[in-house]
Amino acid sequence: MSDIHFDIGSLHGAYKAGTGVAEVIDAVYARLAAADDPGIFIYLADKAALLAAAADLGQFNPVARPLWGIPFAVKDNIDVAGMPTTAACAEYTYWPDKDATVVARLRAAGALVVGKTNLDQFATGLVGVRTPWPIPRNAIDPELVPGGSSSGSAVATARAIVSFALGTDTAGSGRIPAGLNNIVGLKPTVGALSAAGVVPACRTLDCVSVFALTVDDAYRVFSVAAARDAADPYSRDIAVQPLAARPPVLSVGIPAKADLKFFGDAAMQAGFEAAFAMLSRLGCRLVEIPFGDFYATANLLYEGAWVAERYAAIRDFMEANEAALHPVTRKIIGGARNLSAADAFRGLYALQAYKAKLAPVIASVDLFCVPTAPTHYTAAAVLADPVETNSRLGTYTNFVNLLDMCGIAVPTGRRGDGLPMSVTLLAPAGRDALTAALARDLHAASGLSLGATGWSQLGLQPASLPASDGMIDLVVVGAHLSGMPLNSQLDQLGGQFLRATTTAPAYRLYALAGQSVPKPGLTRVADGGMRIDVEVWRLGPEAFGRFVAAIPAPLGIGTVELDDGTRAKGFLVEAVGLEGASDISSFGGWRRFVARGKDMTEQSEKRQNWPAGVPI
Amino acid sequence: MSDIHFDIGSLHGAYKAGTGVAEVIDAVYARLAAADDPGIFIYLADKAALLAAAADLGQFNPVARPLWGIPFAVKDNIDVAGMPTTAACAEYTYWPDKDATVVARLRAAGALVVGKTNLDQFATGLVGVRTPWPIPRNAIDPELVPGGSSSGSAVATARAIVSFALGTDTAGSGRIPAGLNNIVGLKPTVGALSAAGVVPACRTLDCVSVFALTVDDAYRVFSVAAARDAADPYSRDIAVQPLAARPPVLSVGIPAKADLKFFGDAAMQAGFEAAFAMLSRLGCRLVEIPFGDFYATANLLYEGAWVAERYAAIRDFMEANEAALHPVTRKIIGGARNLSAADAFRGLYALQAYKAKLAPVIASVDLFCVPTAPTHYTAAAVLADPVETNSRLGTYTNFVNLLDMCGIAVPTGRRGDGLPMSVTLLAPAGRDALTAALARDLHAASGLSLGATGWSQLGLQPASLPASDGMIDLVVVGAHLSGMPLNSQLDQLGGQFLRATTTAPAYRLYALAGQSVPKPGLTRVADGGMRIDVEVWRLGPEAFGRFVAAIPAPLGIGTVELDDGTRAKGFLVEAVGLEGASDISSFGGWRRFVARGKDMTEQSEKRQNWPAGVPI
Repeated sequence: MSDIHFDIGSLHGAYKAGTGVAEVIDAVYARLAAADDPGIFIYLADKAALLAAAADLGQFNPVARPLWGIPFAVKDNIDVAGMPTTAACAEYTYWPDKDATVVARLRAAGALVVGKTNLDQFATGLVGVRTPWPIPRNAIDPELVPGGSSSGSAVATARAIVSFALGTDTAGSGRIPAGLNNIVGLKPTVGALSAAGVVPACRTLDCVSVFALTVDDAYRVFSVAAARDAADPYSRDIAVQPLAARPPVLSVGIPAKADLKFFGDAAMQAGFEAAFAMLSRLGCRLVEIPFGDFYATANLLYEGAWVAERYAAIRDFMEANEAALHPVTRKIIGGARNLSAADAFRGLYALQAYKAKLAPVIASVDLFCVPTAPTHYTAAAVLADPVETNSRLGTYTNFVNLLDMCGIAVPTGRRGDGLPMSVTLLAPAGRDALTAALARDLHAASGLSLGATGWSQLGLQPASLPASDGMIDLVVVGAHLSGMPLNSQLDQLGGQFLRATTTAPAYRLYALAGQSVPKPGLTRVADGGMRIDVEVWRLGPEAFGRFVAAIPAPLGIGTVELDDGTRAKGFLVEAVGLEGASDISSFGGWRRFVARGKDMTEQSEKRQNWPAGVPI
Repeated sequence: MSDIHFDIGSLHGAYKAGTGVAEVIDAVYARLAAADDPGIFIYLADKAALLAAAADLGQFNPVARPLWGIPFAVKDNIDVAGMPTTAACAEYTYWPDKDATVVARLRAAGALVVGKTNLDQFATGLVGVRTPWPIPRNAIDPELVPGGSSSGSAVATARAIVSFALGTDTAGSGRIPAGLNNIVGLKPTVGALSAAGVVPACRTLDCVSVFALTVDDAYRVFSVAAARDAADPYSRDIAVQPLAARPPVLSVGIPAKADLKFFGDAAMQAGFEAAFAMLSRLGCRLVEIPFGDFYATANLLYEGAWVAERYAAIRDFMEANEAALHPVTRKIIGGARNLSAADAFRGLYALQAYKAKLAPVIASVDLFCVPTAPTHYTAAAVLADPVETNSRLGTYTNFVNLLDMCGIAVPTGRRGDGLPMSVTLLAPAGRDALTAALARDLHAASGLSLGATGWSQLGLQPASLPASDGMIDLVVVGAHLSGMPLNSQLDQLGGQFLRATTTAPAYRLYALAGQSVPKPGLTRVADGGMRIDVEVWRLGPEAFGRFVAAIPAPLGIGTVELDDGTRAKGFLVEAVGLEGASDISSFGGWRRFVARGKDMTEQSEKRQNWPAGVPI
């Protein structure tokens, strides 16, 4: 069998080196045959048709077509023109005459649709066994469930039958199967990718998701697929940031120890704790967060009104064809018949209350890290207890779309028993780039091979810095440094971290007196100046303008000379603001001063205002 | 009867001139007695209690308490501690032990609660006749309905029994009664005012509204009442902008001629067309907008799922006390019993589709102007056909909260038949200040007397500040002053000159050494500061950002305090940049220094180092 690596970078490298697309297509079919798993695809493209589509792409040109010649699979609740859509219910089948918007965008970028993949019927489930067709086999361990609902897409990716696959994710369907198959599952901000041409599950929560072997691949596909789409009223203008270097220090919320749930799976618990150590080595500050309200939010999804969205999506079909439904699916969705409109609104009120309550909690850290799944289940265990096992699998996924967060499931290692370990990074809507940037580092740190292939990860290329293009670089020195209390202002303005460096040896740093949030002041001096640690962030001119306008006296924005002789706009302090201030230049920077202060604080018992949360 | 004018400006003027609060409270009760209308209040404060509350305010102090001694009324679906809440249903009565958040804020600002006002039961209605108590009489024409649901609040305000009153507005209840009683009805952005302590109608759409005799009064009350409130999950951070001068030219959307609905009321049509002429004279550019999708959105409110919110709000009470409900209210809200949760979500999907479709339409103009009501109805006509007349009254109001717009109903004249003419200005969420600013000009242009009082409007004071609306003010002190060499940079960036003024007496000005274009440096000092001449210019945030990015060292942008105590962004100099500079503070400003320098130069022929270039 062909050993062409199917991660996008390798495959484009092969094309550039002369590999023909026919050889790649041959590899697709050969690998599918070798997998010997009739459960993966519900519909497979005809090889001749695929070759014809490839021929239409013309010469290899990854600039004009960033996904030139990349084979991918599509979950069978997403329309592909010329292929049936079944949603894993044969009686529901229709033949769309139009691609779903995301499929059309990926094809326009040169990607090739290999076929439609199996799923939990109507995307209702996290297990991957609720299908009238054969159950796809987990690519890592055939005893395990493949995870769902995007079961076939995850297995096809893990086996590198395709380079990537589309899933959907309402309650975790784009994350759980990634976690169970040692691949990456990018669940975008709801509305970033159009849901036009997708069979709805819960229309207010649905999103199309991406499975890939690497974070870079998943993010590249996301970037191509994302666009506001008038055909989807829930589509939003979510600016796709380039996958750039992340801030070196990030605060990462993790469930408080007492709130962690592994249902007795000690290997998963150990695997999750091992991920903490990886995060710490990557510069993250872990903060334990009480998780009760997140779980309570999650419970709304199946215990409350949202089941009625699933019913609303297929009401006419279900009333006419009830026997056609998978028994478990029928029971779950049928439960919505007894819910009244008043119940639906009471559910929405309950959600709004949790959203309001959790908003400051979510804003208190840069992102969250949770286990992707709390435990693994065998297919036999799930078939024996289909609802409870499914429910447990959603422990760390069900609340995410309800709270309008984005996320990415990323492999972090093998557990003690050899089964896959995966965590999911979560952040508020629109911060897909941040979660991906940290996931990228985590995946690299894991040293894992890709999916079920045994292929090594490529050496991680440094994330490219975005072009400046009218952007304005800003030198921050204090409370706006990454991980510091005001850093979120930069995030909210779309700021991008560029680098950590120092000033030219011409400055002094002071801890200012009388500030509510502790802040330093930087000032240039004629003699006796030192190098001071700073970070350079990049903002658009409007964001920069708003940022400068909001800076209170005695701070302001002047020109700061950096150690490499370049100059950029940056924080300076008025001389008059130094009254009562302490010269802390000898610490070399605000972060080091604060750390020293914290050490002193910890040694001398608790201090009231610093910092919120429980830094581990 | 006392002739103390009750608009807030006049009343505070009276207090300042020595009028006692007891005299004002006497006027409240005297006017209520004179009105001879038992339908206005459901519960009235005891005079002794009101006097005691007034005594607690201490000396007249409108700075500490911007509503010091201002009597107001509260719609009886909003809690006031110590008074019953009935929602116009006696059997529903409860005695809250806590003020609604908005009431608490207004009381803290010095306002005095006179009592609880009548309403369409459970705020369901726009007519004001759906109450078990006597129907309040329209303050302008007793044959007409008072409008609802905030009937008593509007009538109490129009008769100047109070200075202002709180209403609520889900479908128009804060606008229709204002329009029918010749007063102002400010319907804030949903979530700007807390709904905690308010009996819900449709929780996703409800907001507290303000009735007042003038736009300035309504906006002042709004400004005091607005705040994010953790007790209301639908509360939002809506920045309250000052009521400032509006942009001189505004584009105003009006319903396309073919889409206007007056139900045969030619006088209303003529009155609305007369408002066009007023808007044109005020510098507005009218843009006809097709209104079919706005009407279709409006239809969702009573034909679709939102009735279920009203049912959800009182379900337990209604199931136990069905006979207690007003027959019309019972019929409307009872209709929700047959709606399923799937129906509710389908309604939400339909709304989302209209929102997405109308978003670019709404964004295509600065604001909208619609008739407040399409026609007037007598109480007899409404009692004869309670549902259809009510529905018609909502023609121009029902869609507003669904589309997350704010609005203000403002009197614009008398129709040919002498009945009140009112229009409502609408804008996207958060633009309450813009609608109020234009409403203020419209009201002034109408020359109408206030409510039912016959009192003339006060001459309109210039709005305190020009519209800031996200703009950033910049203090310039040197080469960017008007007529100076770099002033053209501000012009090129679209800068607007605001005023010439001086700094607070806390600065020193230096002529910097080694500059190609002569420049001064301004620096704040702890002692020995002086007033320095400056100019204030205004830039958009992007222009401001670009401007700041281009400023060379040693200059930068910090915060400058002006002589009137306000602060704005402005030029400052780094201390290190003062090496070799001359202190020119005694000149009082750069322009005077340059003029002096030029005189000296001319008198003593050329001098080598001063000034280079031609600084005029």
